Amino acid sequence: MVNSFDPSKGPGDLAPDEASLLARRRRALGVLAPVFYEHPVHIVRGRGAHLFSADGADYLDCYNNVAVVGHANPHVREAVADQLTRQDTHTRYLQDEVVDYAERLLDTFPEPLDHVAFTNSGSESNDLALRMARTFTGHRGVVVTGNAYHGITALVSSVSPSFGTGLPLAPFLVSVPVDDVLKHPDGTFDDPDVAACARAELVARFEAAFTRLHDAGYGVSAVLLDQIFSSDGVLPGAAGWVGDVADAVHRAGGLLIADEVQSGFARTGERFWGFLRHQADADIVTMGKPMGNGIPTGAVVYKHGIGDTFAECTRYFNTFGGNPVSMRAAGAVLDEIDRLGLQRHARDLGDRIAASMNDLLADTPRFGGIRHSGLFLGVDVLADDGSGRPDPAAAARIIAALRERRVLISGSAADGSSLKLRPPLVFSGSDADRLLSALADVKPLFG
Amino acid sequence: MVNSFDPSKGPGDLAPDEASLLARRRRALGVLAPVFYEHPVHIVRGRGAHLFSADGADYLDCYNNVAVVGHANPHVREAVADQLTRQDTHTRYLQDEVVDYAERLLDTFPEPLDHVAFTNSGSESNDLALRMARTFTGHRGVVVTGNAYHGITALVSSVSPSFGTGLPLAPFLVSVPVDDVLKHPDGTFDDPDVAACARAELVARFEAAFTRLHDAGYGVSAVLLDQIFSSDGVLPGAAGWVGDVADAVHRAGGLLIADEVQSGFARTGERFWGFLRHQADADIVTMGKPMGNGIPTGAVVYKHGIGDTFAECTRYFNTFGGNPVSMRAAGAVLDEIDRLGLQRHARDLGDRIAASMNDLLADTPRFGGIRHSGLFLGVDVLADDGSGRPDPAAAARIIAALRERRVLISGSAADGSSLKLRPPLVFSGSDADRLLSALADVKPLFG
Repeated sequence: MVNSFDPSKGPGDLAPDEASLLARRRRALGVLAPVFYEHPVHIVRGRGAHLFSADGADYLDCYNNVAVVGHANPHVREAVADQLTRQDTHTRYLQDEVVDYAERLLDTFPEPLDHVAFTNSGSESNDLALRMARTFTGHRGVVVTGNAYHGITALVSSVSPSFGTGLPLAPFLVSVPVDDVLKHPDGTFDDPDVAACARAELVARFEAAFTRLHDAGYGVSAVLLDQIFSSDGVLPGAAGWVGDVADAVHRAGGLLIADEVQSGFARTGERFWGFLRHQADADIVTMGKPMGNGIPTGAVVYKHGIGDTFAECTRYFNTFGGNPVSMRAAGAVLDEIDRLGLQRHARDLGDRIAASMNDLLADTPRFGGIRHSGLFLGVDVLADDGSGRPDPAAAARIIAALRERRVLISGSAADGSSLKLRPPLVFSGSDADRLLSALADVKPLFG
Repeated sequence: MVNSFDPSKGPGDLAPDEASLLARRRRALGVLAPVFYEHPVHIVRGRGAHLFSADGADYLDCYNNVAVVGHANPHVREAVADQLTRQDTHTRYLQDEVVDYAERLLDTFPEPLDHVAFTNSGSESNDLALRMARTFTGHRGVVVTGNAYHGITALVSSVSPSFGTGLPLAPFLVSVPVDDVLKHPDGTFDDPDVAACARAELVARFEAAFTRLHDAGYGVSAVLLDQIFSSDGVLPGAAGWVGDVADAVHRAGGLLIADEVQSGFARTGERFWGFLRHQADADIVTMGKPMGNGIPTGAVVYKHGIGDTFAECTRYFNTFGGNPVSMRAAGAVLDEIDRLGLQRHARDLGDRIAASMNDLLADTPRFGGIRHSGLFLGVDVLADDGSGRPDPAAAARIIAALRERRVLISGSAADGSSLKLRPPLVFSGSDADRLLSALADVKPLFG
């Protein structure tokens, strides 16, 4: 996995108490609990976009899309603490909290997306969405992108090629590479002819996938797309192409599921949801990570006919889903996004960071271009021989060097050759300056 | 579904503001959000085993196995609120909270169960457990009980016959009826010959299931068993039979997964975990509901070799799993179970309630026997014609009549003919008196 601690190498530069914590962790959590960095970071508290170690060292968090309204956000804390003085029972009783939040959430969607079911994670959301699509269409075939990641249940991991081939992918899955088309050298598709050409090529690839699924007897249940293509290298370009694919999958009898776990809740700046950037007629929208700022919660928003069909075939009840504490946390997140103007902030600051990084790195041989939408940025790292080949090892060195400067980012793409930056939305102008200053420090690593 | 509001019947006896809330809920949450009771209950706060409506009416909660240490437990609230002043980041950084809790949790298990992975729900836990078992054994076949319920992901719902046949069950599933054997008339298996006979019969049935799975080419991956058989009618009897099945499944090359979502965390009184009552050599143990007293969290405890094999084939990382807020909530639950002596309390009070209910109802024609372990009780309701047939309609009337007396229970078994009582573990002696008094009031419904 990208940027992961390798326990076989021992504790490295860790202080003795941290090495001891790592050893205890290893004994209790075993090998199924990956840790970031060859030199892991020990965290005891956070504030805004900053995380702090026990000795008070201040890490700049440029990678957190859970704590979007800031680590230890006081408004979220107060909402949760207040609700815990009241009650935190499941939704089989009538309660105000789940209804109040559901209405607020649905207000952020276009009208056909008029119903919501609550879950506890993005994985549960995508799992439910795929079950709903399968029931509604009567088909099983699923199409995703080449290095897609959609979660960790048995079903969604089987439609996530980013896990590799150690466990079998679903037989009814076709994955479509999109990164070769969407990794445009200057990060944009400003030329309308280039954009139109890219969109047509992508639609043709998805239509070929639908034909394969029809021919194999699976039919087409859904296209499931992360709306920022986070694990494919961060691919915001050619805005609108997902809308074209939505039309195509509808023609093929399937649904478009917009996975907004990464791109939702104002992250991409231009619109509150990524699929709206693409003007896509999504049938189901899934969400998770940022929704509760760390309190586990997720949701599936859907056109009501899809839910009606599902309910005719089975029942659905999620014990923790929609619980009042999660709903109050989620409501406080919406409050903060609105109060602090975080959608516009994400757009403006994202643009500024991208432009500054471009200026800083444009003359370096390893810089392969930057792509971004709002506060979600991907930077390709190339070999320094002018071949244009991606260089995952160089990307890993840059990530590690930034960590030693206490700036936390990570990698993306199947080979880990893209840098991924995705800070809390409360990332400030001075946070951006610190990030850029650290990047200037490590600029020699760009060759 | 048992004890569910039927929206086609309209709001019934609801006050106008509650009818309005129900209509708003229906518009936003649609048909995938079932509500209990023909006359739904509107909840605004809770305390101990009590839930309160907006007008201050006091409902006795005899059905909640999430808020086990009490609604609005102050110690849980303080732990969560305190952690939210610190940080709530995922476990890819080194953190103390997840390691501290993991060690405490593992201390409640026998030594071979030495590792834990954290999830956000019982469903995610069972999904992961089945994936681990499949990878470890190289086989797919799963065996569950006749009306088993194990959760709502695509995989676990496909091994949960309690959902009925509206969606297909897994082809690699065999379900084994156990209720006919374990619904012993006096609720116990005090006669050792009777108990031995029951155990032998059950093992023979599971062995026949293994043979079917081998013959079908699936092999045996796992037996997955709720350790109190909550959805099969509450079946604590013939303690030890699960241990016999564990030995049998090991002989067949498969694993025993103990689903402790219902039976775990001291609920059954005698032992902290249900599988220990059965002296079963469980390979994987799953948990969820009561673990965080309402803050979403779940876990999979496993023998480490099983996780090692899984990690060789794939990676696993759960964004919210093991987050510090969930861990602090879960730690506070362990604190309270210990401080208040809730395991012993569950045993003693459960015995008292069962004995009193037996005394109260023994002479009624509809009383079909009571089964319990700790504070988990099942009562069969029969037709009043002496035929011994179960009578789900009569059970539903009793559940509804208790609700009108503000005592909340629900039903169990495939046909809903068993009453299910499962109060918060902080249920007090006077709470028990109130429950028994309400049962005396509705005794005429037992004929």
